[in-house]
Amino acid sequence: MKAAMQLKEQLRCIPWEDRPEGCSDVVWRFGGNPILTAQSIPGCNSVFNSAVVPFDGGFAGVFRCDSKARLPLLHAGFSTDGITWDVQPEAIMFDTDGQDLPPLEYAYDPRICLLDGRYWVTWCNGIAGEPTIGMAWTKDFRTFHQQENAFLPHNRNGVLFPRKIAGRYAMLSRPSDNNHTAFGDIYYSESPDMVYWGRHRLVMKRSTGWQALKIGAGPTPIETPDGWLLIYHGVLQSCSGYVYSFGAAMLDLDQPWKVIGRNKKYLLAPQRQYERVGDVNNVVFPCACLHDASADRVAIYYGGADTVVCLAFAHLSELVDFAKGVD
Amino acid sequence: MKAAMQLKEQLRCIPWEDRPEGCSDVVWRFGGNPILTAQSIPGCNSVFNSAVVPFDGGFAGVFRCDSKARLPLLHAGFSTDGITWDVQPEAIMFDTDGQDLPPLEYAYDPRICLLDGRYWVTWCNGIAGEPTIGMAWTKDFRTFHQQENAFLPHNRNGVLFPRKIAGRYAMLSRPSDNNHTAFGDIYYSESPDMVYWGRHRLVMKRSTGWQALKIGAGPTPIETPDGWLLIYHGVLQSCSGYVYSFGAAMLDLDQPWKVIGRNKKYLLAPQRQYERVGDVNNVVFPCACLHDASADRVAIYYGGADTVVCLAFAHLSELVDFAKGVD
Amino acid sequence: MKAAMQLKEQLRCIPWEDRPEGCSDVVWRFGGNPILTAQSIPGCNSVFNSAVVPFDGGFAGVFRCDSKARLPLLHAGFSTDGITWDVQPEAIMFDTDGQDLPPLEYAYDPRICLLDGRYWVTWCNGIAGEPTIGMAWTKDFRTFHQQENAFLPHNRNGVLFPRKIAGRYAMLSRPSDNNHTAFGDIYYSESPDMVYWGRHRLVMKRSTGWQALKIGAGPTPIETPDGWLLIYHGVLQSCSGYVYSFGAAMLDLDQPWKVIGRNKKYLLAPQRQYERVGDVNNVVFPCACLHDASADRVAIYYGGADTVVCLAFAHLSELVDFAKGVD
Amino acid sequence: MKAAMQLKEQLRCIPWEDRPEGCSDVVWRFGGNPILTAQSIPGCNSVFNSAVVPFDGGFAGVFRCDSKARLPLLHAGFSTDGITWDVQPEAIMFDTDGQDLPPLEYAYDPRICLLDGRYWVTWCNGIAGEPTIGMAWTKDFRTFHQQENAFLPHNRNGVLFPRKIAGRYAMLSRPSDNNHTAFGDIYYSESPDMVYWGRHRLVMKRSTGWQALKIGAGPTPIETPDGWLLIYHGVLQSCSGYVYSFGAAMLDLDQPWKVIGRNKKYLLAPQRQYERVGDVNNVVFPCACLHDASADRVAIYYGGADTVVCLAFAHLSELVDFAKGVD
Amino acid sequence: MKAAMQLKEQLRCIPWEDRPEGCSDVVWRFGGNPILTAQSIPGCNSVFNSAVVPFDGGFAGVFRCDSKARLPLLHAGFSTDGITWDVQPEAIMFDTDGQDLPPLEYAYDPRICLLDGRYWVTWCNGIAGEPTIGMAWTKDFRTFHQQENAFLPHNRNGVLFPRKIAGRYAMLSRPSDNNHTAFGDIYYSESPDMVYWGRHRLVMKRSTGWQALKIGAGPTPIETPDGWLLIYHGVLQSCSGYVYSFGAAMLDLDQPWKVIGRNKKYLLAPQRQYERVGDVNNVVFPCACLHDASADRVAIYYGGADTVVCLAFAHLSELVDFAKGVD
Amino acid sequence: MKAAMQLKEQLRCIPWEDRPEGCSDVVWRFGGNPILTAQSIPGCNSVFNSAVVPFDGGFAGVFRCDSKARLPLLHAGFSTDGITWDVQPEAIMFDTDGQDLPPLEYAYDPRICLLDGRYWVTWCNGIAGEPTIGMAWTKDFRTFHQQENAFLPHNRNGVLFPRKIAGRYAMLSRPSDNNHTAFGDIYYSESPDMVYWGRHRLVMKRSTGWQALKIGAGPTPIETPDGWLLIYHGVLQSCSGYVYSFGAAMLDLDQPWKVIGRNKKYLLAPQRQYERVGDVNNVVFPCACLHDASADRVAIYYGGADTVVCLAFAHLSELVDFAKGVD
Repeated sequence: MKAAMQLKEQLRCIPWEDRPEGCSDVVWRFGGNPILTAQSIPGCNSVFNSAVVPFDGGFAGVFRCDSKARLPLLHAGFSTDGITWDVQPEAIMFDTDGQDLPPLEYAYDPRICLLDGRYWVTWCNGIAGEPTIGMAWTKDFRTFHQQENAFLPHNRNGVLFPRKIAGRYAMLSRPSDNNHTAFGDIYYSESPDMVYWGRHRLVMKRSTGWQALKIGAGPTPIETPDGWLLIYHGVLQSCSGYVYSFGAAMLDLDQPWKVIGRNKKYLLAPQRQYERVGDVNNVVFPCACLHDASADRVAIYYGGADTVVCLAFAHLSELVDFAKGVD
Repeated sequence: MKAAMQLKEQLRCIPWEDRPEGCSDVVWRFGGNPILTAQSIPGCNSVFNSAVVPFDGGFAGVFRCDSKARLPLLHAGFSTDGITWDVQPEAIMFDTDGQDLPPLEYAYDPRICLLDGRYWVTWCNGIAGEPTIGMAWTKDFRTFHQQENAFLPHNRNGVLFPRKIAGRYAMLSRPSDNNHTAFGDIYYSESPDMVYWGRHRLVMKRSTGWQALKIGAGPTPIETPDGWLLIYHGVLQSCSGYVYSFGAAMLDLDQPWKVIGRNKKYLLAPQRQYERVGDVNNVVFPCACLHDASADRVAIYYGGADTVVCLAFAHLSELVDFAKGVD
Repeated sequence: MKAAMQLKEQLRCIPWEDRPEGCSDVVWRFGGNPILTAQSIPGCNSVFNSAVVPFDGGFAGVFRCDSKARLPLLHAGFSTDGITWDVQPEAIMFDTDGQDLPPLEYAYDPRICLLDGRYWVTWCNGIAGEPTIGMAWTKDFRTFHQQENAFLPHNRNGVLFPRKIAGRYAMLSRPSDNNHTAFGDIYYSESPDMVYWGRHRLVMKRSTGWQALKIGAGPTPIETPDGWLLIYHGVLQSCSGYVYSFGAAMLDLDQPWKVIGRNKKYLLAPQRQYERVGDVNNVVFPCACLHDASADRVAIYYGGADTVVCLAFAHLSELVDFAKGVD
Repeated sequence: MKAAMQLKEQLRCIPWEDRPEGCSDVVWRFGGNPILTAQSIPGCNSVFNSAVVPFDGGFAGVFRCDSKARLPLLHAGFSTDGITWDVQPEAIMFDTDGQDLPPLEYAYDPRICLLDGRYWVTWCNGIAGEPTIGMAWTKDFRTFHQQENAFLPHNRNGVLFPRKIAGRYAMLSRPSDNNHTAFGDIYYSESPDMVYWGRHRLVMKRSTGWQALKIGAGPTPIETPDGWLLIYHGVLQSCSGYVYSFGAAMLDLDQPWKVIGRNKKYLLAPQRQYERVGDVNNVVFPCACLHDASADRVAIYYGGADTVVCLAFAHLSELVDFAKGVD
Repeated sequence: MKAAMQLKEQLRCIPWEDRPEGCSDVVWRFGGNPILTAQSIPGCNSVFNSAVVPFDGGFAGVFRCDSKARLPLLHAGFSTDGITWDVQPEAIMFDTDGQDLPPLEYAYDPRICLLDGRYWVTWCNGIAGEPTIGMAWTKDFRTFHQQENAFLPHNRNGVLFPRKIAGRYAMLSRPSDNNHTAFGDIYYSESPDMVYWGRHRLVMKRSTGWQALKIGAGPTPIETPDGWLLIYHGVLQSCSGYVYSFGAAMLDLDQPWKVIGRNKKYLLAPQRQYERVGDVNNVVFPCACLHDASADRVAIYYGGADTVVCLAFAHLSELVDFAKGVD
Repeated sequence: MKAAMQLKEQLRCIPWEDRPEGCSDVVWRFGGNPILTAQSIPGCNSVFNSAVVPFDGGFAGVFRCDSKARLPLLHAGFSTDGITWDVQPEAIMFDTDGQDLPPLEYAYDPRICLLDGRYWVTWCNGIAGEPTIGMAWTKDFRTFHQQENAFLPHNRNGVLFPRKIAGRYAMLSRPSDNNHTAFGDIYYSESPDMVYWGRHRLVMKRSTGWQALKIGAGPTPIETPDGWLLIYHGVLQSCSGYVYSFGAAMLDLDQPWKVIGRNKKYLLAPQRQYERVGDVNNVVFPCACLHDASADRVAIYYGGADTVVCLAFAHLSELVDFAKGVD
């Protein structure tokens, strides 16, 4: 736990660890990875693909925990340093506030986005057994107010923008099919009210190499003077299964469905034991970033092998350069 | 009910042919089938899966015509009797009225719905090569005003309700994948403004027999005192390909996502040469109904074998009984 | 209907029509085909793949009738000439005689075999939604006594031998999977009591050409001095679906799992409109033979295009030569 | 046989029938189609996808005949008018002239090309059960001299150019897999000696619509002042199987792997009963042309539904215009 | 090897190791896992999915050993403590006692059941290349008497009950297809004589989560006052392949096809390196239990990653509670 | 034998490590494996499946390096001991010497063969996005002269013989499809000039066990008095993906398409962590051998898990015995 020690002095900041000597990668892993394993939550099969935000002087998060029935649900969690987490043993029971919503069947791969003073959680939600984008908001990470699903099935990886675009809420998502979807591109949609969605636009399609099979938005996009920094995952189909890596692109600030930069290289690919070996081999799947623009720091939370939660770091300026393809 | 009002003056004019002697089927075919073939449109490969409405004392329609490049587009057409049609040789060029909409790539399987004095056309529309629900309105079937696509891909068989439900526009659709989708259920969505859609609900899932693989809404639902009469197609997968038949269900008037009746039998299955043999064998695919409630008559327009347009008839009261499962 | 006329003089014999002039095929079609269509049974979608036997001076049969829900069930039928059939409008309700058998879910592709004074019907029967071999016996074709299913799923095309082999009942069957099985070979099994089955042996595997994908036993094997004459169907996978033809093999009299003759050619392949066009295109599927060894005549009942019942004829001696590969 | 009558006066010419009145298609069908059916060859299942050339004052051809074992082999045939054919009842036995060639397993889809005084036949030939391009030459259509296969498996639709290109023999082909290949593009290869092949180049890829799944060269390309006229088949995958149509492209005279024209429309698609219904539904497959440039006439031989041989006509000048995309 | 030390004092008992401190799982792994690897058998690729029984004061077993040709065969083995095994270097040569049985092609995934003084071995046995349930008995684990295969192909995971049910032998099995079967439910069959089998009943179907794709019986069921305790494996399909876990259900004592308890959670899922990484990743596959009811102890033998043999422990009473769903 | 001559002076220098004590395997791994990892090449994702030859008193090699875009290209490298390698950071830019060759799209799985004083490199090369056999030669491993691709797509694993056979160059290859090909056999082709190829013959087909799905030639065959020693990879399809092992066969010296020995066992299968866990799990893929016949030594270079380069050793005489099936 030496790594955690090093971090103490940065207690009020986002988690951080300097780039290891000799390393020239834009993104580097936390030395204390994985930061969360199934051992942390009683009766849990695995914890991964989870989202965190700064909250109340520390951090709060929503965690994907698969039970021993292999049913994925969301759990809230809290942390003072962003590294050591106290995850609630009970899954979030969403409050429907009297609305007649379709019942919660399963929930996975959450993202969190602070918007108008509310923390909006989006996730992959089952409706009649098919995946779509579930939505809820909370102010305290104790009570979560579920809202209407954003889209029709089949959809996954719904990621909100942290402010309105031209007066409307905006979300990225990845239309899918009802299985281990073998295709997938990122689309953009708008909403006047977080209930009804429309004005759908293609943002970008799968490409080659590590992102040849499908792509999906990762953490909430980070607004920079150069555009929206989008970290996204990509999938390659090998003859022993899918390989999930992640890279970055830059979207136009005002018309975020326009891609103004995109790097053909990945930022991180599964290469450590905890990324290569687990319930699903060869997966790194980013769901959240913490960033401190003034310190030029980004902490990326990602799932490893669909089994554990991991952390990686980067300098924001380097990420932006990378995403613009300057790399 | 305003729409129905408007139709009163046309009471005597929907196409009709009495049930043949000895026939006890709820739906029977027009003796002059097919009513439209590729010969009717110059340079056309096929014409099928088309929609019609009463218009200007006669009828107007939007027709799916596949070119000899096998590119499907929509053509407007007019008729005085609903049987002999004058289809425009040029495909509809949609007017975007200055909006920056994704370009039209292809268009097929139209439906028409009179709503607030506008004829709304919905169809399967390509966005970035993937199918979703295109929307446009016209008042004269000469100028068509294209609007935003209703949903994200992949979707087909978008069918509007002919009046608002609880103050909002309502549409049925069939989420799909990007291919000859091997699954498919009918969902219900609402919109305050025909631009943004939400409050999605499952209506009904595929079932057994002729509707075991997938189902999709057919003509605009017909409002009856007993509920919304929904004629829908179903698909069975045989070892020589898909077989498209159609049947009926009854939806709750106020909460149309609630199924209050559904018949396990089909109303019509491909059995005539023009339904069994064509560009796609064994297809009957209904896209429109004309009905005259006072005369207890319904005329159903359906595509045959993805090649021709056909017509069938029924008594509305018998369709309602059938849909309620009383049959 | 001249064909039917010709047959009158043979009223007590099996149906017959001489080989057409100029035809040199071993098997030739009845001029009055199809002999049964859906029109014959009220509310029926189709009637095909059915079995008949001599009964009470005339003939009785068990017919596969698919309802308009596309649910296949079995119907009894009677005929004086084997050509004009009176099929019961109601499906057979099997009598379980108090046994706690799995409930009947669907029933298709029957065969009939007279054994020890009982007419045994075998068919493809659903158990928990999966296909296996259903069994029942009747003495009068009015009351059918259902017995235990012969095998575990997934199995189809169970065909009994008309006498015991080495003191045990014997059946051919075609192990399958739970779908449009893309493989299939013929196996042989024995039973001391028609309840418990064992001593399973491979009889023959799919081969090339018309029988490259899968094969399955057809009518009850015919005992001849040269061996058991087995007419069987074979399937070829074309790029527009499966093609079902039928041919013949000769099995050892005492060890029927030993193939002593097999012809690489088919006897009949789908070539007429009623065999090529229907609910499933390009299918001829034989389920029963009537034979009169003294007259050297065989009448073969087969389904056409999964839609109608057809009849074909052959000389027994020629069939035997063909099956021995002498052809 | 009125159609054949009409042709008598053109006895020394290629077959011909004027464009029907009211028809504006570039290619039109012969009124006497199909010109060859299985009835013409004893013991044959079907005859289709065959090639013809002018020969000895009349015409000679190589015909694909599938036996009743569904084994495809090649048969020679002769005709005085190009319409009525005398096809040899026995399949061609290739002479290997003492070479140790892989044994002939099956043979289908022949083309014929006159080169240096020899009629070269190319076909789909089995090597170790896998398809590749078989080659043989004849001077009299009685003795055929088999040569080495041109390529490694898996390949189909090998079509020679009728003269050397830059001093080397040239062939188009369609690399495949070992099944109902779901992809396919046209490549160009050269050979100094008809034994060794190399300098492979892509000519053109599958595209959209009727040619979206795969394409393959059809008849021997026709040299015109504007380039090589290439008639080729294209395949669309419908939900009831593949649909084979044919269209045209124009290749550079000196560098035939360069496409200088290509029409998005098809010339002919399966629309007649004999093209829609057969052993494989919805197939028109061209294998040969006869052309008379001075009379501006082309006769196209094509297979219908993998079952019969058909004939269609066109004016060469119109084909060229079509292929250039001027249409 | 400290773990093995601890066990010495329990030499006449079944293997045992107390639940680790802090662990609250119903099933826990042996500290000395894996107990058998390929190194133990000369020329062997792997040893896994094996069965053991108490025998002659110690233990005997039948082990699945895959050769370096990757041919799976069965080897006998002996042990005094149930942990250290002496596996025979030569595969079992079954004695057919003069019966004309289909030849042994391969053999894998054995189970052993003591019945009427004979140790019955059941395994996945090839007949004509297809999997079914092989059967043999031994009294000394030196001579094995092979019997008729129980069922037709395709079947796997045949597991006998350790006593007759209502006077008949009883077996669970998992009907399959001829490949990496993507479905699978547990059925029950009866036999009067261990040769002929019938009276087949569905026991339970695949479900959700870890058992969503298929399930199969594991060790011989353990009779308890509450019912038959059935440990069974379940398979989940991830995007990097199948994941095999195991759980438990409780079957009715007299009608074992009736499920009276079933837990949605797994007992053990692949989480250790030797379960996650091997010839097939992410597999735990139980084939045998030793139990000592008086000591409330169960030792479970399971294969790890299709590569090694492992051992886990549980208290019988807790397993029963778990299986009843009381957990 | 000229090539072997040239090597004499290097007799003492191929990498070597004696067989570990207690090991009786024909092939054993180098204790220092892996010898090359991505760390060795800046900006590289992985280095594997690479080829080496004796060169200039030491060794030279061509290495498959996948970039972080997951684009595979070839890099040259040099070594004095064959174990520690200096791989060029820049991919090989092939010199086309003015030929109009299809542009290089990607390049992987190289082999090197010394022929007539030139080092010929063959690799999997993209033409129009499809894989075939790329060819180039070098004399100094600095300038590489690209030549025409040997074959049409789709092909992989092209391996030259190190001398002419009956006066012609000879190559083994593995025809494929355009994906993770699920079939694959080894063929033999000849060329008079390294440009045009023909006289194709099947060498051997996939078989059972570890080589049941597909096989492909590995290193350049080694000439021995007993025949050509061919080390080749084989693939087994497990339910968690493909497993690549390698074994050996012996080909006739004069007619190398004739197999005179083949061992059913593998020589090496993925069993170490660096073979089991990586970008593609469970892969050992041999691309090159160094051998010293007088010392009876062979060093085999193989890729591990599509991630690293590994080394293994054997005695040539034992390999020959193994390949002959004497093992």
